[in-house]
Amino acid sequence: MRAKALRLGLFLLLGGASTPLFAHAAAPAAAAADSDALAPDDGYRLWMRYPDRTIAPDAVTVRGRSAMLDAAAAELRRGLPAGFGPVLLATATDPAVQALRLPSEGPEGYVVRRATVDGRPTLVVTGDSERGVLYGAFALLRQVAVNGAAAPINLRSRPRIALRVLDHWDNLDGVVERGYAGKSLWDWWTLPDYKDPRYTDYARANAAIGINGAVLNNVNAKAESLTAPYIAKAAALADIFRPYGIKVYLSARFSAPIELGGLKTADPRDPAVARWWRAKADEIYRAIPDFGGFLVKANSEGQPGPRDYGATHADGANMLAAAVKPHGGIVMWRAFVYADTDPDDRAKQAYDEFKPLDGRFADNVVVQVKNGAIDFQPREPFHPLFGAMPKTPLMIEFQITKEYLGFATHLAYLAPLFAETLDAETGTAPGATVARVVDGSLEGHTLTGMAGVANIGDSRDWTGSPFNQANWYAFGRLAWDPGLTPEAIAREWTAQTFGRDPEVMRTVTAMLMRSREAVVDYTGALGLAHLMATGHHYGPGPWVSELKRPEWNPVYYHRADRNGIGFDRTRTGSNAVAQYAPALAAKLADPRTTPEGELLWFHHLSWDYRLASGQTLWETLARRYDRGVATVAAMRREWEGLRGQVDPQRWAKTATFLAVQEREARWWRDASLAYWMSVNRRPLPAGMAPPAHDLDWYKQQRFPFAPGNPQ
Amino acid sequence: MRAKALRLGLFLLLGGASTPLFAHAAAPAAAAADSDALAPDDGYRLWMRYPDRTIAPDAVTVRGRSAMLDAAAAELRRGLPAGFGPVLLATATDPAVQALRLPSEGPEGYVVRRATVDGRPTLVVTGDSERGVLYGAFALLRQVAVNGAAAPINLRSRPRIALRVLDHWDNLDGVVERGYAGKSLWDWWTLPDYKDPRYTDYARANAAIGINGAVLNNVNAKAESLTAPYIAKAAALADIFRPYGIKVYLSARFSAPIELGGLKTADPRDPAVARWWRAKADEIYRAIPDFGGFLVKANSEGQPGPRDYGATHADGANMLAAAVKPHGGIVMWRAFVYADTDPDDRAKQAYDEFKPLDGRFADNVVVQVKNGAIDFQPREPFHPLFGAMPKTPLMIEFQITKEYLGFATHLAYLAPLFAETLDAETGTAPGATVARVVDGSLEGHTLTGMAGVANIGDSRDWTGSPFNQANWYAFGRLAWDPGLTPEAIAREWTAQTFGRDPEVMRTVTAMLMRSREAVVDYTGALGLAHLMATGHHYGPGPWVSELKRPEWNPVYYHRADRNGIGFDRTRTGSNAVAQYAPALAAKLADPRTTPEGELLWFHHLSWDYRLASGQTLWETLARRYDRGVATVAAMRREWEGLRGQVDPQRWAKTATFLAVQEREARWWRDASLAYWMSVNRRPLPAGMAPPAHDLDWYKQQRFPFAPGNPQ
Repeated sequence: MRAKALRLGLFLLLGGASTPLFAHAAAPAAAAADSDALAPDDGYRLWMRYPDRTIAPDAVTVRGRSAMLDAAAAELRRGLPAGFGPVLLATATDPAVQALRLPSEGPEGYVVRRATVDGRPTLVVTGDSERGVLYGAFALLRQVAVNGAAAPINLRSRPRIALRVLDHWDNLDGVVERGYAGKSLWDWWTLPDYKDPRYTDYARANAAIGINGAVLNNVNAKAESLTAPYIAKAAALADIFRPYGIKVYLSARFSAPIELGGLKTADPRDPAVARWWRAKADEIYRAIPDFGGFLVKANSEGQPGPRDYGATHADGANMLAAAVKPHGGIVMWRAFVYADTDPDDRAKQAYDEFKPLDGRFADNVVVQVKNGAIDFQPREPFHPLFGAMPKTPLMIEFQITKEYLGFATHLAYLAPLFAETLDAETGTAPGATVARVVDGSLEGHTLTGMAGVANIGDSRDWTGSPFNQANWYAFGRLAWDPGLTPEAIAREWTAQTFGRDPEVMRTVTAMLMRSREAVVDYTGALGLAHLMATGHHYGPGPWVSELKRPEWNPVYYHRADRNGIGFDRTRTGSNAVAQYAPALAAKLADPRTTPEGELLWFHHLSWDYRLASGQTLWETLARRYDRGVATVAAMRREWEGLRGQVDPQRWAKTATFLAVQEREARWWRDASLAYWMSVNRRPLPAGMAPPAHDLDWYKQQRFPFAPGNPQ
Repeated sequence: MRAKALRLGLFLLLGGASTPLFAHAAAPAAAAADSDALAPDDGYRLWMRYPDRTIAPDAVTVRGRSAMLDAAAAELRRGLPAGFGPVLLATATDPAVQALRLPSEGPEGYVVRRATVDGRPTLVVTGDSERGVLYGAFALLRQVAVNGAAAPINLRSRPRIALRVLDHWDNLDGVVERGYAGKSLWDWWTLPDYKDPRYTDYARANAAIGINGAVLNNVNAKAESLTAPYIAKAAALADIFRPYGIKVYLSARFSAPIELGGLKTADPRDPAVARWWRAKADEIYRAIPDFGGFLVKANSEGQPGPRDYGATHADGANMLAAAVKPHGGIVMWRAFVYADTDPDDRAKQAYDEFKPLDGRFADNVVVQVKNGAIDFQPREPFHPLFGAMPKTPLMIEFQITKEYLGFATHLAYLAPLFAETLDAETGTAPGATVARVVDGSLEGHTLTGMAGVANIGDSRDWTGSPFNQANWYAFGRLAWDPGLTPEAIAREWTAQTFGRDPEVMRTVTAMLMRSREAVVDYTGALGLAHLMATGHHYGPGPWVSELKRPEWNPVYYHRADRNGIGFDRTRTGSNAVAQYAPALAAKLADPRTTPEGELLWFHHLSWDYRLASGQTLWETLARRYDRGVATVAAMRREWEGLRGQVDPQRWAKTATFLAVQEREARWWRDASLAYWMSVNRRPLPAGMAPPAHDLDWYKQQRFPFAPGNPQ
């Protein structure tokens, strides 16, 4: 399915955002050079690098008055180039639009089409709702940026997923957990008084890619976020985001009735607790009438939850859901749980806890499941819950911030990681991909969602590096249409971010497309995972074995010894494979039919195990480290070749970061090889360079102030 | 003396930066409007808001090649307006300059003068050193911005103080202690690899106002700042700052030999300790050949120091001084000490500890003394040590960040506070002002310095608000010349920051000049101090009495009861007045001859005490709160009147902040009055409005995530 989409993507630069019938096949070859492609650029403008000379303001007409239509019109006036013809913005209820008998794209979709209005040729941007018009305006700007203003325009699209949400892990003191792009964008201290213009730019950037929700505070939540002052601050942000179609949500601390309400319990079955939440929800909705709802991390990594009282996750979620239900709110309840009292394979615990609850959640609850069963590793098999809870809406949670993939510094384009999970077949039925579970089409759910843990902070370029912007962008585009190909998205992003020069487009897209697999290679390929250092998760730590809880230690995950390596999740081991649908489980039970990229996730194998290639496991693993380093070195050379073709500021930052990445890829390689060799006492495969230092040196590295790791 | 300078300042817009003989009296009246005065402005450019159309690059000629001269030339090419005539940059050793027989302004001074060079009229920017040329270039840009390019130009100046240093209280995790403008400007994580262009802009902004040193890390120091990775990071910054004449310094943790070196002691008299520091200094100087030296907070608020071993502050300072001496480095040793074991008046303790050490410090030690004896309050009498250590160079420390004056939000121009201390007469000799102690002229010291605790963070406008930029600016200008008047500096800053429109100039300058006294009024006038809430120091807390150490409690400072208020520091009390020179001490011993602004600092007086006005103490104090609120309300109205005359972004932020300040000034007033009335059981003076809430309400206010207060 992805392969087909890929082919489509090659001639459809806008991919699934436009249906093939109406799309333009115009490739960006020989595009007129952007006049300002080389002007200094600090990255602030993201994918909204509009021309200096813009359309005559009165060429953009709005029918109907609303903040959202005004925002759409303002965006076109800022972003369409001089000389662009007349544009009309109106919803489908407008008589002039009705007369055109355009197709409907549903409550959030859009149609952009040339037509004759009041006797003159006009580009009509419309949709069933104002939100559709807004998205149509941004789609038009994207089309012009990617294909040029001269290319034919005929666009229509609708989102496949209803909730397209960024999760900000932002603490109230401004520290962003797993944030590598400065501190929180929300200046809680000066809110609600001071409305930083940047908040509006954040909303514009999100609307441009279809994101329609933002959870403002960390899932490791403080009760204070639910106090009156913080509700007022959230309301100020909601007011700014509203014209851009973005709802705000809050992470709720489950024990807030105790901490704020003075109750003795937070037991969800206690009527006083339910009353407290009902009143709290009423209070929030008085300040934010379109408040989205709550995100909850409960009974996970020390957070309070219903299990503290012997109640189930469904009890907890449903009690909160009842509080927001009268206002149209929802609850996003995370399935990321594992208990220090449970000796079973950590990868199995969420399934064991949630599968029995299938069908027991209220209709305004969506269970939020991470893409994999551990925690946002460079590669994980899809989470078994996606094939296991047909009666429950499941929202997928990706991590856009690169906690495990090199922080902000390393170049790693995550769309291939996202797409890999979305395209995975759950095995429950033919064509039953994770994407079809998430978009609701497989099981008939309409409450559908995709969440991304934001990589956004207050650094000038938002994400800590120009290339990290691509991951924010790709998340939004995949949430709109999970069928878009990573390559099509890469090309869109590149054109909008660095301009349409063919060599720049080709080089940047190629760099993006190889970058994530390079990280897998140099941090540990073949299905290895969770090999990083403790706490900050920066750099290698496969030797770590002394942490209190077994599943905090990398040795728990790789289980390497003199003879072999890998986590046996077949029947002879934890039998986690049994959590997948039978046909898939059978495949995963045999190393010969397990995808090579997931091999050691599911199997403990001899170092001398022969892969399909005929090479041993040890040789293959070792050479993957070299391949990862080589890919980064090549990316660095290719970027060097673009010197002078990209503006100097973003070029220099990227060049510096690629140098850091190459150095750190070598560090990962050398430290990992030194450790594996200390365990398996095998020589390096022929021709491979030995590690630069001995193992002790790597073990002694300390990074006491690594970012993103609040104490 | 200030009065005379004030008069001079009125016709000398550049004040002491130019000697009267050569200065231009051109007032900015009816100046040509800046073409871009109303363009959107996010405040990033500070006082370097250069014209869009600039001088022809080849009109600026450099004789001699160096990074510093190149930086000076680049600045003029960026900043001088189109049509500006030829400019020559060269040191006084250049033959063409020698031929002009210009006066010398010493090692850092400059001369900017029209002359004929190679047969053509040229503006010569010169000095004995490249640094003088650099400062001359910035003085020229200031002159043009303030007086216009058409005004005659003839500038010369030299700094009166050698070390003009910003102290950054920046922690290695990016949190800035008492910082209200985002996180640290130094991205320690990506240093030394990534050199953010902003580091260069920081250096430019400082060079423009004559600052020549930066202490990079918090005085509450971590030993890690002295490890090899952090030395490399500091060296990267030093390389960037060097062409702008700025040396880097580090705060040193006194116990580092234990924490990093594995020694059993940090006793400064232990040869192994001295050896460790010597080796550490050698290591630093290998990376940073012009490293400035160490700043040390020892035996103060929990920091380790020589007193831990029974050694003196001089022992500690001299040991460190010996380590940096071979490299030309210095030690700035803070006198901010007070001990929880000492029951004596906290205001006396630094004097008691340091005065006996006068003359016992090595010649490359300078003792850094805060402007007042407590801690950067809105008003404090000058620190008695300034009149008490003639044999020791004393560096003055001001706080530019507004820990006690409303954080970044309140508008409070601090030049009047700085000047008040600098102008104070120590009473040791006629004309013996604090300024003359600090500039070394009184006691013949050449190691002279002024330190300012920076208000800079990574917020886009650097200081959290447009008006806070004025305090950074004023600090630099006063460090260059402590005789400049606050008003002259205000006018300079306003012209460069908001343009030369006469109404804007008049209004902004008037707002600035009243603003600090307003803060004194609404937080507690007549010499009251340290009345703020605990920890974060935000808002009023005069009732706080339960903290462990007595001198942490506001009640310790105000000592209010049913009958009276104030801290008796005369012979009947702590006798702190005896720490001043006899003539001054005698004056301060009598409330009738004590300046009204310092009355309750030195005296405990009846609420019914009659001031010179005939009003009672209580009525005066109460009405000052009203006056403070009224001043803020007036400032807010005046700013409202500038709507449309200042660019919209900076206008709106300032308008919002003034609204917050007015609200918070009322809060301070109401909370303080409610508390005083609860103590003195007196009614409010006639006509005054009662507090909006009862005292308990004010006591219950909590601000758990106030900025600048690392836990």
